[in-house]
Amino acid sequence: MATSPLTYAEAGVDIEAADRVTENIGRLARRTFDSNVLAGVGSFGATYSLAGQRLRDPVLVSSADGVGTKLKVAFLAGRHDSVGQCLVNHCVNDIAVQGATPLFFLDYFATGRLEPGVAAAVVRGLSDACIQNRISLIGGETAEMPGMYRDGEYDLAGFIVGAAERNGLLLGDGVRAGSSLVGLPSSGLHTNGYSLARKIFFDIAGWTVETRPGRLGCTVGEELLKVHRSYLKALRTLKDSSLLLGAAHITGGGLPGNVPRVLPNGLQAKIWTNRWTAPPVFRLLSEIGSVESEEMYRTFNMGIGLVACVTPGAALAAIRALADVGEKAIDIGVVETGTKGVVLEP
Amino acid sequence: MATSPLTYAEAGVDIEAADRVTENIGRLARRTFDSNVLAGVGSFGATYSLAGQRLRDPVLVSSADGVGTKLKVAFLAGRHDSVGQCLVNHCVNDIAVQGATPLFFLDYFATGRLEPGVAAAVVRGLSDACIQNRISLIGGETAEMPGMYRDGEYDLAGFIVGAAERNGLLLGDGVRAGSSLVGLPSSGLHTNGYSLARKIFFDIAGWTVETRPGRLGCTVGEELLKVHRSYLKALRTLKDSSLLLGAAHITGGGLPGNVPRVLPNGLQAKIWTNRWTAPPVFRLLSEIGSVESEEMYRTFNMGIGLVACVTPGAALAAIRALADVGEKAIDIGVVETGTKGVVLEP
Repeated sequence: MATSPLTYAEAGVDIEAADRVTENIGRLARRTFDSNVLAGVGSFGATYSLAGQRLRDPVLVSSADGVGTKLKVAFLAGRHDSVGQCLVNHCVNDIAVQGATPLFFLDYFATGRLEPGVAAAVVRGLSDACIQNRISLIGGETAEMPGMYRDGEYDLAGFIVGAAERNGLLLGDGVRAGSSLVGLPSSGLHTNGYSLARKIFFDIAGWTVETRPGRLGCTVGEELLKVHRSYLKALRTLKDSSLLLGAAHITGGGLPGNVPRVLPNGLQAKIWTNRWTAPPVFRLLSEIGSVESEEMYRTFNMGIGLVACVTPGAALAAIRALADVGEKAIDIGVVETGTKGVVLEP
Repeated sequence: MATSPLTYAEAGVDIEAADRVTENIGRLARRTFDSNVLAGVGSFGATYSLAGQRLRDPVLVSSADGVGTKLKVAFLAGRHDSVGQCLVNHCVNDIAVQGATPLFFLDYFATGRLEPGVAAAVVRGLSDACIQNRISLIGGETAEMPGMYRDGEYDLAGFIVGAAERNGLLLGDGVRAGSSLVGLPSSGLHTNGYSLARKIFFDIAGWTVETRPGRLGCTVGEELLKVHRSYLKALRTLKDSSLLLGAAHITGGGLPGNVPRVLPNGLQAKIWTNRWTAPPVFRLLSEIGSVESEEMYRTFNMGIGLVACVTPGAALAAIRALADVGEKAIDIGVVETGTKGVVLEP
């Protein structure tokens, strides 16, 4: 038997501290609310009206994601806002490539011991990105789990819901031989390949987040924490132009792992890799880690964060439409008959 | 520079192993699909048609949750299905108390090194509970993050979406002085208070998951892994009876932390704690940990997993309606004028 009365706080969980964090999160979240949010943080469930979407045959498109070990770089650098932004943009892209309008977002933040400043920085990143994408951060869970995470560490997951007219979904069913592939630049690693990148930069090269390799033009920490881009505006532009047949968000598995997700059987994507120059971070990773080219393309996005498949002959029109919204797109390939997959041309 | 070419697998991430796990998850998830699921695991986003709901003014109700350090008990016992079931039922309850029909669920499973058998057991639990609640497991994220979790450990979060007619939401606005409070039994700790419970049973008492304290009637592991109950059927029954004004899912914060969430300002809930006997696990925790009564009620559900607030004088009718669906409800309190909060009567 315990000699003095035990409390939940003594077991490492401070409900009052959690309440204070929740209050702060509530303030950050309310900045993102649009008029469709009926009840936000504080209720058991968060309620969002679909009335404003005016959909005749509504389909919900949703996705769950994390930011992987990019978090480890955030811990090393002590900078916690960018991972929140990355998570929202990653989720937005995952449903926007299906033709959905993103509506709302919920997060899951788990840590061993709640540090209010860190939690607030993460949620500030989430809410900033929600505002930029015009979605509402309507709920989430903040979990304090003593003994689950190392001191100063946390995990972060996100969940997004969007909506589309059923006949407005991008299912890639119009993709055929001759369709053009247009690539949109990434800002860097986005949220993939961090376990390998950390091994190469921190273990093999012996660098820290403060190191400034000449070819990067910034510190290793700044490079690795660059925000995963949102392609929402670009995808809307292409959808409005009626040129878009399908789009692939280039995440885990790289170009070879993701482009086939918009290909019907019997079609392959030929990608001319000489059409763009992979940013310096990828060349450094390849050189220092002696990583073979195929492994680089399977692990990293190599500078292309999104591939849009457009109607045959429409690559130039798509690139011009994207230039009007500030996006520097590249004609990177074509769809051909063949075994479903990606052929990387040197 | 690396002396031999580095691969992503050498950095601790095996994309092919992940693909095999994803395939297995896909099989388990497809068991749960209803006719509204348009595309499931494998697409960037998961699509779910709302057409089948035939709602005039649709409102989406969503929630994100985890299972806290109940996971640590699963790790100790090597049993991974019950935490998945707990998570789904927890999420279902959180939106059913708002009057929503749960539609679909997505999970986030994160671990240091993917063990296909463990991941499969967790997802089997998720999919079993989804089938029981008639919701579809339409997506999720499986993250392998070397160095983030201890060997054999993982974290698990869930996201649920349901729908309701806007005027069918349970907002608690009909709750008034004289309204009755009906309690529904929990199966045990559900998913709250595990950090304190583990400290008391494992550190102070020195028990293991295999210990069989006479008063429990099962091992400590079996008791602590009991599945968080779903109150979906009970809530539907009460909603159909038109007696229901609001309902509180008793999670973190216990009765004092959750019942006020359905109270308008100027009203308090008086709860007669002598109306039910807290199950043996709570009495053991209180005795061994010398935990004071107030702390017990703030940390644990104390045997009541859901509190339904019904129209004045309707407690007996509600209890009878619940008995018809096999639910043993108890008349545990009343709403009175006073400062918003809970008064526990001994």
